[in-house]
Amino acid sequence: MNQQEIIRKKRDGADLTAPEINAFVNGVTSGAWADYQTSALLMAMFINGLSPDEQSALTGAMLDSGERLDFSDIDAPVADKHSTGGVGDKTSLIVAPVVAACGVAVPMISGRGLGHTGGTLDKLEAINGYNVNLTTGEFKQTIKTCGFAMSGQTAEIAPADKKLYALRDATATIESIPLIVASIMSKKLAEDLDALVLDVKTGSGAFMRRFSDAKNLAEALVKTGNAFGVRCEAVISDMNQPLGKYVGNTSEVYECVKILRSEADDAMQPTLELAVELAARILVLCGVADSVQSSKFKVQSSLDSGAALEKFRHNIELQGGDPTVCDQPENLLDANLIKAEIKAETSGFVSEINAGAIGECVSRIGGGRIKIEDAIDFAVGYQCEKKIGDEIRRGDALGVLYCRRENQANSIREKLTGAYKITTERNANDARLIKEIIRGF
Amino acid sequence: MNQQEIIRKKRDGADLTAPEINAFVNGVTSGAWADYQTSALLMAMFINGLSPDEQSALTGAMLDSGERLDFSDIDAPVADKHSTGGVGDKTSLIVAPVVAACGVAVPMISGRGLGHTGGTLDKLEAINGYNVNLTTGEFKQTIKTCGFAMSGQTAEIAPADKKLYALRDATATIESIPLIVASIMSKKLAEDLDALVLDVKTGSGAFMRRFSDAKNLAEALVKTGNAFGVRCEAVISDMNQPLGKYVGNTSEVYECVKILRSEADDAMQPTLELAVELAARILVLCGVADSVQSSKFKVQSSLDSGAALEKFRHNIELQGGDPTVCDQPENLLDANLIKAEIKAETSGFVSEINAGAIGECVSRIGGGRIKIEDAIDFAVGYQCEKKIGDEIRRGDALGVLYCRRENQANSIREKLTGAYKITTERNANDARLIKEIIRGF
Repeated sequence: MNQQEIIRKKRDGADLTAPEINAFVNGVTSGAWADYQTSALLMAMFINGLSPDEQSALTGAMLDSGERLDFSDIDAPVADKHSTGGVGDKTSLIVAPVVAACGVAVPMISGRGLGHTGGTLDKLEAINGYNVNLTTGEFKQTIKTCGFAMSGQTAEIAPADKKLYALRDATATIESIPLIVASIMSKKLAEDLDALVLDVKTGSGAFMRRFSDAKNLAEALVKTGNAFGVRCEAVISDMNQPLGKYVGNTSEVYECVKILRSEADDAMQPTLELAVELAARILVLCGVADSVQSSKFKVQSSLDSGAALEKFRHNIELQGGDPTVCDQPENLLDANLIKAEIKAETSGFVSEINAGAIGECVSRIGGGRIKIEDAIDFAVGYQCEKKIGDEIRRGDALGVLYCRRENQANSIREKLTGAYKITTERNANDARLIKEIIRGF
Repeated sequence: MNQQEIIRKKRDGADLTAPEINAFVNGVTSGAWADYQTSALLMAMFINGLSPDEQSALTGAMLDSGERLDFSDIDAPVADKHSTGGVGDKTSLIVAPVVAACGVAVPMISGRGLGHTGGTLDKLEAINGYNVNLTTGEFKQTIKTCGFAMSGQTAEIAPADKKLYALRDATATIESIPLIVASIMSKKLAEDLDALVLDVKTGSGAFMRRFSDAKNLAEALVKTGNAFGVRCEAVISDMNQPLGKYVGNTSEVYECVKILRSEADDAMQPTLELAVELAARILVLCGVADSVQSSKFKVQSSLDSGAALEKFRHNIELQGGDPTVCDQPENLLDANLIKAEIKAETSGFVSEINAGAIGECVSRIGGGRIKIEDAIDFAVGYQCEKKIGDEIRRGDALGVLYCRRENQANSIREKLTGAYKITTERNANDARLIKEIIRGF
């Protein structure tokens, strides 16, 4: 079947066979499919959807477009977590060392931030010297030495996904559950995992704003992982407000180190809670703990004992970063930044926060990327003072913006203030951090 | 609005505004829209459709992407016909000289054949020396001198359509009524017409196989023409079998000259009948005749008097072709071709003919194009001996293939034989040539 016949079939709502999907993905990788043909099929897939069989075939074909890592020589369970992306979502920097401290190897291949969301690689690069561009050999050696490594996707892993993602970004075909599943899972399945925990965000700062969409995505991710023999669970977690205290690269690393040092303040508790949940579930899936409850004790003791912090320090050393951030996390914060308070204009209760708008504001002053090629100012960020349910008085600080110049603050002050919905009554909106767990089948 | 926002809007089924459609078409023409973005929007338009307002806006934007001809200095009504394409569909070569002989100027911009359909430009090039690549100046001068001209689309006419059509061909987004309407009408409206008659084909050799699709297309074409101030009618005509006697470039020219010479045999009668219908309706729309009935007399007398033949001869002279084809049409037929009879394998009645398959067979032996860059062998073709409703005996010739080599005939004999469905009872299928007339609003 040629390109047009395959496109026509999906255009008309029929299911593609596995050989047809393989022909498509191979054609994308080889260049036999022109970009305009690929984007036409992506749009037809977006609108008409993919069956579970098609979704598995697409994931498998994208996985097979590149190399798979091989950890058979590592004498430990191999596991990872993946987040669908949010604002202030920094748990990877806690989960990876915690899980490694509990005896599970973590080959964490991460991404960069775009738009309102941050990316783990950007946060890591906020640590002076930290190298996120490991070769496959360096990546494996780091895991063998300290139990985990964090690096970017190499050209050898799922190259079809790189091409398809760039086209989807340019053609408004990102927000499709089957395409998201194939993109995420083709990379994660290349990590040779025993277990994978997915953190699927829902709410105003998530790609899946609606809970029902997030649940559909979570179920599809877990089913696809299971179909490829990986034990999977998904945690549907709240993204109706930024996670924890900080949004911005160095300040998020600071928050994580404070948590790893058992020095978390109240505002950092949600970050700790979610990291513990994710880490605990990984340990259970790997058979390292019997129940989530007992696993959480194990996780907590790796934090209390400093074992997780030492794993993080060891990893930073191995990946070329400055390990003193583990001892003096305050040094991460730039004392020369301007602190601009964002003040409430009315009294009442915080009933909604547009987390996406806060993420966009931080990106706009340089803390993230509007376009993929933008450079990042790691130091700028936002400190959340008030969260959903908090009572406030007119003039209270909703948050504090850390920026370089006064006019940066002025350019986004209105948008930041507008991100908070203040009501006279306390609102009963669901602000629970963990909404639902999707278990494997 | 940027590309992604416009694509997203149509992707989600919303109507685009005229400024959004203009931004799209301007971006296609200027190159600001990447091909992969254009094809993604075309697929979204294909699947989610266009409202009448969107269809008009798209047509207008594509029209405005190029130049419009100006015939204000021609002291005659200006009209054209357009066919949606079929097999053996050769009426343009009769309609244009007939209408010109009746005092209406015909600026006929035509296309080439692709797949199973023939193209007027290819047929004209079967006349030795005939130039279908006129400049705008030559085109106008030819019309002023002999009443009509036939030429290809210049780069100045609807350049957006050229780009869009090539992308649609490569991405399986051809068969969309609003996209077809915008493509056809953006070119026809550039001809500065007073009237336009559309020949919308339906059946096994047409793009619109189903009558209901053909009717929807016909209505959309007429409405769009009316919206731009052009008097329009559509004739929905039969394409369940090849039109008339011949399929193939020189043999189709031969059939037309025989008709213009009033020497048509029985097998050529449907070609004559449809040409008269189309020409008569053009004259009525132009106010040259009061009724279709009286108009048909006028048309017939232009044929009987030889006036139409003389117009054709004059046009061939002006466009550089060999006018002796008008005197010795037999010279068009190559006596060295192999004649291979396609024989019926059973006795009974011809109840169906796959006209598309016959067109494809002729293309495959060189009479048309499989790919856009293929060269054409003008001489090869197919002569229809039996039509729907004819009684046949096993061994009777269903048709005669004119080809270069015996193995050409062998390579398509099975497909040609299989194009005929023979039943024991005479079938009551609708084989009427003129199915319905769609009048202007």
